[in-house]
Amino acid sequence: MTPRHDTISFLTDYGLADEFVGVCKSVIRTIAPHVAIIDISHDVAPHDVRAGSLTLVRAVQYLAPGIVLAVVDPGVGTERRAVVVEVGIPGAGDAYFVGPDNGLMAAAVSMVGGATRAVELTNTDYQLPAPGATFAGRDVFAPAAAHLCLGVPMDELGPSIDPLGLRPGLVPLSRVEDGAVLGEVLWVDRFGNAQLNVDPDELDGMGERITVRVGDGVRTARRAAAYDDLGAGEVGLVTDSYGLVSLAVARGSAADELRLRPGVGVTLSAPV
Amino acid sequence: MTPRHDTISFLTDYGLADEFVGVCKSVIRTIAPHVAIIDISHDVAPHDVRAGSLTLVRAVQYLAPGIVLAVVDPGVGTERRAVVVEVGIPGAGDAYFVGPDNGLMAAAVSMVGGATRAVELTNTDYQLPAPGATFAGRDVFAPAAAHLCLGVPMDELGPSIDPLGLRPGLVPLSRVEDGAVLGEVLWVDRFGNAQLNVDPDELDGMGERITVRVGDGVRTARRAAAYDDLGAGEVGLVTDSYGLVSLAVARGSAADELRLRPGVGVTLSAPV
Amino acid sequence: MTPRHDTISFLTDYGLADEFVGVCKSVIRTIAPHVAIIDISHDVAPHDVRAGSLTLVRAVQYLAPGIVLAVVDPGVGTERRAVVVEVGIPGAGDAYFVGPDNGLMAAAVSMVGGATRAVELTNTDYQLPAPGATFAGRDVFAPAAAHLCLGVPMDELGPSIDPLGLRPGLVPLSRVEDGAVLGEVLWVDRFGNAQLNVDPDELDGMGERITVRVGDGVRTARRAAAYDDLGAGEVGLVTDSYGLVSLAVARGSAADELRLRPGVGVTLSAPV
Repeated sequence: MTPRHDTISFLTDYGLADEFVGVCKSVIRTIAPHVAIIDISHDVAPHDVRAGSLTLVRAVQYLAPGIVLAVVDPGVGTERRAVVVEVGIPGAGDAYFVGPDNGLMAAAVSMVGGATRAVELTNTDYQLPAPGATFAGRDVFAPAAAHLCLGVPMDELGPSIDPLGLRPGLVPLSRVEDGAVLGEVLWVDRFGNAQLNVDPDELDGMGERITVRVGDGVRTARRAAAYDDLGAGEVGLVTDSYGLVSLAVARGSAADELRLRPGVGVTLSAPV
Repeated sequence: MTPRHDTISFLTDYGLADEFVGVCKSVIRTIAPHVAIIDISHDVAPHDVRAGSLTLVRAVQYLAPGIVLAVVDPGVGTERRAVVVEVGIPGAGDAYFVGPDNGLMAAAVSMVGGATRAVELTNTDYQLPAPGATFAGRDVFAPAAAHLCLGVPMDELGPSIDPLGLRPGLVPLSRVEDGAVLGEVLWVDRFGNAQLNVDPDELDGMGERITVRVGDGVRTARRAAAYDDLGAGEVGLVTDSYGLVSLAVARGSAADELRLRPGVGVTLSAPV
Repeated sequence: MTPRHDTISFLTDYGLADEFVGVCKSVIRTIAPHVAIIDISHDVAPHDVRAGSLTLVRAVQYLAPGIVLAVVDPGVGTERRAVVVEVGIPGAGDAYFVGPDNGLMAAAVSMVGGATRAVELTNTDYQLPAPGATFAGRDVFAPAAAHLCLGVPMDELGPSIDPLGLRPGLVPLSRVEDGAVLGEVLWVDRFGNAQLNVDPDELDGMGERITVRVGDGVRTARRAAAYDDLGAGEVGLVTDSYGLVSLAVARGSAADELRLRPGVGVTLSAPV
């Protein structure tokens, strides 16, 4: 069997304080020593499938060809399915997503063209014997990813399932009401920038200064090309590195200043 | 000299904010570029030899063959010994533990069959010249691990010492009193699950609902196979992924709910 | 083109919670799959160029030969230059620093002998198309580092600039006044040790016990060779692993005890 893939991109909510991530990597290394593992993030908030899903979406188009191993899995050990989802990336051959079927991977899978095939991970020949049913990353998902890298056909790992039956992700859409754009915060990054589910195009015609409403608060923000183009304390609307609109404060935290966190609603409109 | 090992599993209390871990990896990379380093954890609480020891024990049976490099070392620069401990893993050849002789590695070494040989790291030819005596990870332990990977015989690194003279680890044992199991918390994981030093067998005959005493508090916990089998707010006793009993709250933190932290005593008994 | 380098040492203020670091690594892996990436630190405080610079200085002499990729970049997207700086390391061939021209890399570059050549990163053929101008690590710096590893000549990446015109770093120097040494805290590590910009030589003649003044507070510290040579609660002055004087408290935090943080002034003198 010739190794077919040599990169696993790895995302979890395991954190780095416990040994969970290291043990999964050790399992992969033992099965498939030729594989390089790239950590996308392991600090997804515990059990936060939505946050993990959005992190994957932001990263997916930049990932090296191969396997995506994603585990945010509050339902571990219950009837939620463990799956492999195959995608065909134009020009890059096939690639696989390995993780729980709970919506975590759905938006990223869509982003790279959608699922071509899927299987449920039920073949215990490709799993570790588990003293308890609570660490599927170690016992089910990491071994599956490693075996796919070795060239084991996905059909070996379990029965085919209908890709259309995979649990969809929730992608909150913005909408327009009375000329205002009603969006929400998708993500607050380390620097306190708050990414909105709003395209720069949606702000066309509102002008350079835009009224921002969060709860009862009203602020004026200026559209800017870079964080440091903003004056001290000024709130900005910047097209971020993913092409979405982010609220920013130069060398400060927009999230602290405007009390933003993921899921908070934000209304953008031309000044009255 | 043919390289003999190509994986180092690495555990410390260095944290990831300072450059300590990166510098140790750079030292290894410079000496033995063919080696892959797998981080087990670097967030062991500062100087907490017990917590580091338990993390190693949980991980050790899953580690890739090779070297374990473990540094939680409050006595660095004093008379505590720096050592390499050889273990013979059935079917996997020999392997080495490199670290301070302070009990950190003892329980993991036992878990994989016990020490066959040991040396004290005194040969400065295999160490970096140190401006100060406070960073043995960089100057003593990382170079030793790297040289072992290159195939340098352990005897080169310093004089043999009696493996029986290595400092033992402390493994707290549970005991039975008046039909109740008296255990303690070994570990609280990121999700707030609290692992006890209690085997599932010890609860046989207590029934599905078990009385849990922590300090003055009394709660009833239900035995469950998976975290998500518990109802909202319900306290569970789950056989965890290491085969020990853990206190858990579904999608919540048992540690917060029951005020648990490592070392806290927990009494389990059949309901009155 | 024969690959010329196979190690990138990577430092940022991106943190590990967001996917920034993982995406940069994915970009490198896609361009130059043969490269190993060693994380120096990604927990430099956001936008803290001084702290990042000092971390690089502490690490640089231990780094594996190759590329240093350093991104602490509050001015991203503005007129600050993106650069590659070449250094010639005696006995180790040439090496490159890739990052913003904001003083971050200056002290480390000096430490290894100074810049021999530099270019500004303006050739977009070696950059990723960016939806927004805010993530130069992904779009400009990581691709440049990866292409250098592939053997692309630095001249291809943009026009030569005068190394003497690179922005200098700020290295705070200690001074002597009335027989006392006036220094400041460079760094507080995870264990609460506070490194000063003071050489052990500067304390010659002050004796074993030294008066330490921080703000209005006065303490007596004892010179010691190792942290654990100090008695409980005793404040020590230890020559740390970088050869500088550090304030330490055995198994405690000197930073907490003496209210130290980077930049705080500390005066050392013989007891009256």
